[in-house]
This record gives sequence, C-alpha cells and structure tokens, in this order.
Amino acid sequence: MTKADLTRFIVERQSYLCIGLDTDPLRIPEHLRSEPDPIFTFNKAIIDATHDLCVAYKPNIAFYEAMGPAGWHALEKTLEYIPDTHFTIADAKRGDIGNTSRMYARAFFSTMDFDAVTVAPYMGVDSVSPFLEFEEKWVILLGLTSNTGSSDFQLIRDADGQALYQRVLTTAQTWGTPDNLMFVIGATHPERMSEVRALAPESFFLVPGVGAQGGDLEAVIQHGRTDDGGGLLINSSRGIIYAGNGRDFAKDARNAAFALQQQMSGFF
Amino acid sequence: MTKADLTRFIVERQSYLCIGLDTDPLRIPEHLRSEPDPIFTFNKAIIDATHDLCVAYKPNIAFYEAMGPAGWHALEKTLEYIPDTHFTIADAKRGDIGNTSRMYARAFFSTMDFDAVTVAPYMGVDSVSPFLEFEEKWVILLGLTSNTGSSDFQLIRDADGQALYQRVLTTAQTWGTPDNLMFVIGATHPERMSEVRALAPESFFLVPGVGAQGGDLEAVIQHGRTDDGGGLLINSSRGIIYAGNGRDFAKDARNAAFALQQQMSGFF
Repeated sequence: MTKADLTRFIVERQSYLCIGLDTDPLRIPEHLRSEPDPIFTFNKAIIDATHDLCVAYKPNIAFYEAMGPAGWHALEKTLEYIPDTHFTIADAKRGDIGNTSRMYARAFFSTMDFDAVTVAPYMGVDSVSPFLEFEEKWVILLGLTSNTGSSDFQLIRDADGQALYQRVLTTAQTWGTPDNLMFVIGATHPERMSEVRALAPESFFLVPGVGAQGGDLEAVIQHGRTDDGGGLLINSSRGIIYAGNGRDFAKDARNAAFALQQQMSGFF
Repeated sequence: MTKADLTRFIVERQSYLCIGLDTDPLRIPEHLRSEPDPIFTFNKAIIDATHDLCVAYKPNIAFYEAMGPAGWHALEKTLEYIPDTHFTIADAKRGDIGNTSRMYARAFFSTMDFDAVTVAPYMGVDSVSPFLEFEEKWVILLGLTSNTGSSDFQLIRDADGQALYQRVLTTAQTWGTPDNLMFVIGATHPERMSEVRALAPESFFLVPGVGAQGGDLEAVIQHGRTDDGGGLLINSSRGIIYAGNGRDFAKDARNAAFALQQQMSGFF
C-alpha cells in the first residue's frame, strides 16, 4: 500500500486506528475454544466487527509463533481475511545480518503478503535495508518504544547530547524514505512527540501504548500528525480485542474501537 | 543445559564449535529437493556427519520462517533430532514489550525446547527478562555483532566515553547471571575481544563471523576464552553446511567442521 492510499483511508474513515491482533488462546472467550481453528475464528469476528473503524491490523507474531505450526496457519488465514482496504503490519521486531534479514523479508513480504514489518535497529544498515528493497512494502523501525525498558538504552545521550533513538531516526532516514520507512514512537512519551515529529517531518509513526499501557491519545494526535491529516497509526491491542470475554466479545470490541475512533474523529 | 555441562562438553571434545543451520531450500544439493522434507533431510545428514566435532547447533529461524508452516515443522523435527549432548540455540534475535517477549519465550522454550534464544537489547529490561525466568534456559543477548551495520549504533559513545555495546554488556549483567545470560560478540572485531572479556569475565560469548564473514579464529580463542577452557561458542554456518553441494555434501561439511575443530584443539 502506498503512503497516499494509507493517508486517504485515514482521512475518509477519520481514524488513525490500528488494531493489534495479540490473540492468545488462553484469553479468547471460552465458547470459541472448541472451534476447529479458535484463533482464526476469533480474529475473523474481530475484523468483521471493527473494519469500518480502523485503517490497519497488526498481528503480533509472537502470539502465533507460540502456538507452533498451527499458529502460522491461523496467521496466514487471518492475513488473507483482512480486506485490501486495510494496512497490514507483521509486528515481529526482526533484524539480523543482511542474508538473514533477507529471509525475514521473504517470510513476511513473499511467503506471506504483509504491507509492513516492524524491525529492530540495533544491528544497523544491513539488518534493515533488505526489507526496503520490496516495492510498496514498509519497514517500521523501532525508534522510541512504549515500554519501561525503553529508557535503558534508547534515551542514552551520546557525546553530542543526542539520544540513541534520535540517532536512529536521523540515520535511518538516509536508508529509506517516508514512502517505505515508518518509526515506532510510543504513546507513553507524549512530551516528546513534537520533537520526534520535527526529526522526521514526513514519516508515518506507529504509536503503541494507548490503552493498556496508558498513553495520551490527544497529545499524540495534536503533536504527532502531519499537515495532510495523516502520519499516524495509533495502535490498541488488548484494550479492544479483550474488551469483552463472553458471547458478545465482538460487539464489545467494536464498542471499544468506536470509542477510540470517535475521539480521533474530533481531529478531522 | 547448565554452564558446567556445556563447559565439560567443550573440554571433552576440544571444540568451541557451534554449527549454524541456515538451511536454504535454494542452496541444498539438487538431489535432496525431491525428498518429502528436504530441509530436515539435509539437517539430519549434517548433524550425523558433524556431531562429534561440535558442541552446539544453531538453527537460524529466519530460514525456517521463510518457508511458512512447513519450515516450522522442519525446525521442530531438526530440534528433536539434535542429541541431548549438544546445546541448541534458536537464532531468532527476538525482543519486545514484556507480555510479548513472554510469548516468544514460550515459543522457543515451551512449544519448542531450545536451550537458548538470541535476543536484541534495544527495548531494554522488560524485553529480556521474560526469557530469563525459565530454568536452565539461556538468553544470548546481542552485544557487538559481526556485520558491517554493527558500527551504526553499537559503537556510538555516550557522554562518559562508553560505547553502546559496552553499556549493553554492563547493564544486562544486572538482569541475568553467567548461568543464564550469554552475549553475541562478533569475530570480526578481534581487537576488542580482550576488552569485552574484561567487561564480562565469566559470561559465555557466542561468536559468529568466522568463515564467510572473515573473522580471526585464533585471536578470538586466545583473548576470549575463560580460565576453565570454556566461555566461547564459535559459530560457523555457510562455511560448513555449504562446503559441498553434491552427493558428498555431508562429508564435505564434516571436513570443514574437522578443519575448524583441529584449529581449536590446539588450544586445549
């Protein structure tokens, strides 16, 4: 999917919402567990109930990997089921030496057909660039993450006073462009959003941490969006998909997604 | 596997050798491609031909992931086939927020039964510690990697003159111990091996970069091993498993592994 298409979907739906499919067999409603493929059945119901409210879906690969080959089957079926009008993100945090990153790129962009994959920057240019060689595919590089451990290394300042995540943002923009490279910027650092936007003025940010992790939605949108109304994908996972746990779980998920989309629509 | 057992196997076999199973369906010998499970058939032949010469096997997860669910089946069969006398490493470079790292840990330590998994440090403590909660399981954390991109961020010095990889080594030793935490230290930086050993005097290092990447084996052993004769797992992947490409590929792999083990045995 191109940047123009993604921005158009955002403006049309008045929504930055990305729904994280962190589907855990131990957390899905009881009555689904006897289905032949409970994970796919759950994801399908969530997608059916929410697709008009969001612009992206983000399966969290760890959850599928933890189920072994059956998890990969459920992931493939889920990806196929997501409409073409939605941006798809493999949240995989991959990154390795060049020949290995090339294999991960093949896994997510050829074997499967995701629009984007999240990538960790620690190993530098040759760990990222193989993902950038695919047409209309995206790298979403970790910048400033939403978790507590983000302060361990990402905030370390170098001799010039630049924090590591700032170096990642400026360096990586010499590897890719705003048309194939986004950054993960956690909503739990709202006070940094303006500064991060200034460092990468045209790039999309994938913003986790709203909801379960307590990030500030309004500050993120106000300081994070770009002039064309795009520039943000704001993720919520557990807050939506586990909003309910009974037979009405999909309706509960829709209500949670609707509440977020309504807050977002005020900015359009 | 415990540190004592691993050290004992190293001393007994006079070998630090870890064989990387970067098994690519496009690079295995022609005559295997019509087998029902060519990847497992290849790995089995490599393991049969080399196990007395090495102490560890390291499947590179990207290569299996790129094949979809069939790749995961081949990976599971390979892992089961590796003898208990060998340390098994899922080279996966994972790392995510706590609840997600917990799922990756489940994937590699419970769904599968690897001894160790490689983890990227960028996201800090909560991305690493879920892997450390498993008994007799290991995190192998990226320190200073062997690839060209290792200089992009890992060598950046902070205001105190400490490089990022040095901070990673010192900080991570407050999260784990030499009994459950190793570090990746590339053989392509042999001049740093003494300094790295001083920063983590008792930790095992997984050392990639010998062979295809051109690292210096002797310098690594001389400056990297610990006083008990252990402390190192030296990896070679392509240099061994693709040493030959014909019907004798397993014999060629053995010869390549034997040449490395012979160089290593001179240090015992």
